[in-house]
Amino acid sequence: MHIASDPVADHSAAAPYSWTIRVYYEDTDAGGIVFYANYLKFFERARTEWLRAAGIGQLALSEGDGVMFVVKSTSVDYHAPAKLDDELKLTVVVERLGRASVEFLQQAWKISPTGSTLLAVGRIKVGCVNCASFRPSAIPPHVLDRIPR
Amino acid sequence: MHIASDPVADHSAAAPYSWTIRVYYEDTDAGGIVFYANYLKFFERARTEWLRAAGIGQLALSEGDGVMFVVKSTSVDYHAPAKLDDELKLTVVVERLGRASVEFLQQAWKISPTGSTLLAVGRIKVGCVNCASFRPSAIPPHVLDRIPR
Amino acid sequence: MHIASDPVADHSAAAPYSWTIRVYYEDTDAGGIVFYANYLKFFERARTEWLRAAGIGQLALSEGDGVMFVVKSTSVDYHAPAKLDDELKLTVVVERLGRASVEFLQQAWKISPTGSTLLAVGRIKVGCVNCASFRPSAIPPHVLDRIPR
Amino acid sequence: MHIASDPVADHSAAAPYSWTIRVYYEDTDAGGIVFYANYLKFFERARTEWLRAAGIGQLALSEGDGVMFVVKSTSVDYHAPAKLDDELKLTVVVERLGRASVEFLQQAWKISPTGSTLLAVGRIKVGCVNCASFRPSAIPPHVLDRIPR
Repeated sequence: MHIASDPVADHSAAAPYSWTIRVYYEDTDAGGIVFYANYLKFFERARTEWLRAAGIGQLALSEGDGVMFVVKSTSVDYHAPAKLDDELKLTVVVERLGRASVEFLQQAWKISPTGSTLLAVGRIKVGCVNCASFRPSAIPPHVLDRIPR
Repeated sequence: MHIASDPVADHSAAAPYSWTIRVYYEDTDAGGIVFYANYLKFFERARTEWLRAAGIGQLALSEGDGVMFVVKSTSVDYHAPAKLDDELKLTVVVERLGRASVEFLQQAWKISPTGSTLLAVGRIKVGCVNCASFRPSAIPPHVLDRIPR
Repeated sequence: MHIASDPVADHSAAAPYSWTIRVYYEDTDAGGIVFYANYLKFFERARTEWLRAAGIGQLALSEGDGVMFVVKSTSVDYHAPAKLDDELKLTVVVERLGRASVEFLQQAWKISPTGSTLLAVGRIKVGCVNCASFRPSAIPPHVLDRIPR
Repeated sequence: MHIASDPVADHSAAAPYSWTIRVYYEDTDAGGIVFYANYLKFFERARTEWLRAAGIGQLALSEGDGVMFVVKSTSVDYHAPAKLDDELKLTVVVERLGRASVEFLQQAWKISPTGSTLLAVGRIKVGCVNCASFRPSAIPPHVLDRIPR
């Protein structure tokens, strides 16, 4: 399933941030494919590395600013399955940046010598909250300044 | 966050199938709450027990009919966090039953002596596929007959 | 693999605490069987319910006493695989109770109409630590009094 | 906890194969640290990459030779906790190579600018089995030849 004309693929043209991972036994299920819930983990690994590349560490954020990012909503469409040993590329695009929230468009692609296959497309909304109260909190300015747009 | 007037809560009136679980350390993350991706696991546990209650076993389905249910899309809104030791009730409602797919509305509620709190609402679409080719396959009639509506 | 003469099975005679679970897709891997690391989760679920049955909640423990149990060492032997939909019985036996640690012998059995099969045997050592410093801390007396021996 | 004189650390001198990972939210629990069972996943990631570096892919192994490696026993000692965003180095040393099994000594180290800290030491025994029967099967010669010793 090589997808060239998919409208969401236009983001690829903009060369979004991407992070590459491998599929291990831990990621698969008895169907012989990656367990669908694990794409949420994969997408988060990519967002975490995207933040780290921008100089933002999440442990430092919670310990230094008393805030953390929590996921408010997720939406994932699964197009094709991945298998053990597959190499996956996860992309990160900010679709909307609010005062206390960020909305991401993320894709999972299978990378192979014969081309890339779109496996899953996710829309993830995260909110910045106070670590103790879990109440919404403005994203600290020093973080906001560093978030790539 | 006791939600009485939420429109999705109307389904509670219809007494949907529900399955109760506990939150263990394995389900939580360093934010001190249940890791959001795990609600997809919780929802699947409830769908599995709902199928089992209808006499449908998924290993038997793949070994006997050569088909299995795979998740095609998921959408989850997170309303409130759950913590270690919380008791959660997961509900299962069929919103649409197709020839080769089923769409579910599922909720996660925290149960406590003082009342219930809506934690998360999910919409999960599963498709019936051939175990070898992963191509869509009609839900076997003996399964379709047993699916509660 | 019905094991009647296994020396560790003698503990069954003493009717140890047991907790029953089901195997879901989330627990399996592409080998078609339960992913071995998940037995550690299963064993912990049983220890948690065993503590709860004794009136000890772990969130209450950390919030009320400022201590928590952490795992110091694990050792698991895998005898037979479990599959999707299998019903498993997890047992809990205290082998040694120290001032700040507890050593458990745990077994995972597959339950079926034709008999039980020993799947895995684990030895788990947990230590009581201060939640902030992670330094060893004596098990609080009100907890020690309730731990079944 | 910088461990210089630990006897197991002698293996570091031999420059064993190592694989580096990061700790994400998915790896942590409500204790604020990496959930202990996840070290088994980390160790397996390292073994998988060690095999891959030797030209051995596990999906190819099961599809081409009809055999797979399954874990027969695990033993892990936990020395110090890891936290969110920590960078971990996992090492792989073959302690014993049999006709149908391999025994590994593996370590998890926290890497930081001020030095390395030993977090966990594992001994993992894997067996080669037939994919269908799960019965022991000799490691295929073309695999045995490539396993680094």
